[in-house]
Amino acid sequence: MGGDSSPLELFEGILEALNFLGKRDRIYALATPAIIKKFLPLSNSSQLELIAVSEFIKMSENPVHAARKKKSSMAVGISLLHEKKVDAFISSGNTGALVLNARLRLNLLPNIKTPALLALLPTEKGPMAVLDVGSIVTATPESLRAYAQMGSTFMERYFHASKPRIGLLNIGSESGKGTQIHQKTYKLLDEFFGKDFKGNIEGKEAFQGIVDVLVTDGFTGNVFLKTAEGVSAFLIKLLKKKLNNLPEKISQFSPDEYPGAILCGVEGIVIKCHGDSKSKSMFHSIMGVRNLIRTKRHCSKDTN
Amino acid sequence: MGGDSSPLELFEGILEALNFLGKRDRIYALATPAIIKKFLPLSNSSQLELIAVSEFIKMSENPVHAARKKKSSMAVGISLLHEKKVDAFISSGNTGALVLNARLRLNLLPNIKTPALLALLPTEKGPMAVLDVGSIVTATPESLRAYAQMGSTFMERYFHASKPRIGLLNIGSESGKGTQIHQKTYKLLDEFFGKDFKGNIEGKEAFQGIVDVLVTDGFTGNVFLKTAEGVSAFLIKLLKKKLNNLPEKISQFSPDEYPGAILCGVEGIVIKCHGDSKSKSMFHSIMGVRNLIRTKRHCSKDTN
Repeated sequence: MGGDSSPLELFEGILEALNFLGKRDRIYALATPAIIKKFLPLSNSSQLELIAVSEFIKMSENPVHAARKKKSSMAVGISLLHEKKVDAFISSGNTGALVLNARLRLNLLPNIKTPALLALLPTEKGPMAVLDVGSIVTATPESLRAYAQMGSTFMERYFHASKPRIGLLNIGSESGKGTQIHQKTYKLLDEFFGKDFKGNIEGKEAFQGIVDVLVTDGFTGNVFLKTAEGVSAFLIKLLKKKLNNLPEKISQFSPDEYPGAILCGVEGIVIKCHGDSKSKSMFHSIMGVRNLIRTKRHCSKDTN
Repeated sequence: MGGDSSPLELFEGILEALNFLGKRDRIYALATPAIIKKFLPLSNSSQLELIAVSEFIKMSENPVHAARKKKSSMAVGISLLHEKKVDAFISSGNTGALVLNARLRLNLLPNIKTPALLALLPTEKGPMAVLDVGSIVTATPESLRAYAQMGSTFMERYFHASKPRIGLLNIGSESGKGTQIHQKTYKLLDEFFGKDFKGNIEGKEAFQGIVDVLVTDGFTGNVFLKTAEGVSAFLIKLLKKKLNNLPEKISQFSPDEYPGAILCGVEGIVIKCHGDSKSKSMFHSIMGVRNLIRTKRHCSKDTN
């Protein structure tokens, strides 16, 4: 509920995912009674459970008020996660409300003060974790270092990267580039990660696979992520006009193909799909989350 | 001098451009005597003049010190522009030093307090001016409004856009998105441009051609620009592996194909090529600048 796509569109992704899940996997879909009535005739799978909620949060709503006051689908779902009745929670709704609901209802992992949204992006040499991509618009040097630690742990656990290479998204390679926050962060990362810190990384080289973790504040990270999507969509449209034999698998930056952003720093797996996610992206979110659950551990700083 | 490519590499671009210029056009190349000695045997065109300078500014140099103290190729070239001995100055060197040299040696246009670097990017519906792409890392709401005015005038003059559409680069469409600076800028732009202000624009929609001018601070704009280049280069590499018949003209975001960033707000045309520009990008800079000179006017706010 509450995303830019209709609940029915997203439900198609759930139905598709049910075909690929293991026998003991289960999906719970939360929606208002009127929507559940529409879902009912579409599936009789015993692995699907529909949960009625009275409210949901709109995209345009004030996240603070909505997270505190509403017994929304988001609040109910995250409470289920807190009570360990589910292993992961996926939402395509209001990002601010999702982050706040998670902070209100889930425990922070040890040593974490601010959760961050982590997105996986493809590079020439494999996936790269980028964080924060929109949990909080500004960041202090200390929170940027914490993002680096969370990203590093994430890449170790889920992609078996040994000594993940860290980069700071910046506008030039020299240590003096960017704002004072970037300059101070450069020093902190250099002290903390030593030779695993590969310095400042520019957008033009970020996709060469130089680093496993790219650290940035939520505003810049969100612009970075969405620009990558926008450029990719634009180029693919251009190419489709010129070529007939464009391969299916070039839509590397399409949000539909990626599981969405992962909220790091809280207990439990919380995934943020795009606001305009379609059935395909819900499907990929579910499949991606299933892999994360199987790895059985989530990103945290406590083992560093 | 002072770019990441060798002066000889850039000189090839100059030689190529000489083949396409009008009979009365002239290029002045500034370099140290040792480099000029290498240039000499390569061209005997009467339209090329070589000017010896004693110093140049390195990429890693402190821009403030270098701009104030050095009689560099950059300082000499910009002084020629100020004295109207040349119509435009092109550099592939240190961006900070270029902006400071321009501020020290050129007059600001009426009502302009801060110059901005403007880059032209392709969209589905034609070129879009993005500014600032790196002149100053942070921006106030008032300077962002001035960028919008400069961008708007630029698009009117050089692309004959009537009532250019303005957008603010942000992480969501709602007026409350982004930092307090973005929220305040949204209001200022809305008041000033009325229905020509199309609101917040996200990176994923920026290439759809919704706006003619995209306004952003220098840090975010630089990340935006370089991410567009990086993603484009990555996708094209991927495609080249899969396809044999990739058309030549898909490298839409390649810095080599664009004239570089234009420094708006000062008297005279100053162009910043990429630090890693090759001969091809120098060639395109010269050809692009020739078009700007022919249009005879430069972006300024005074006619708004």
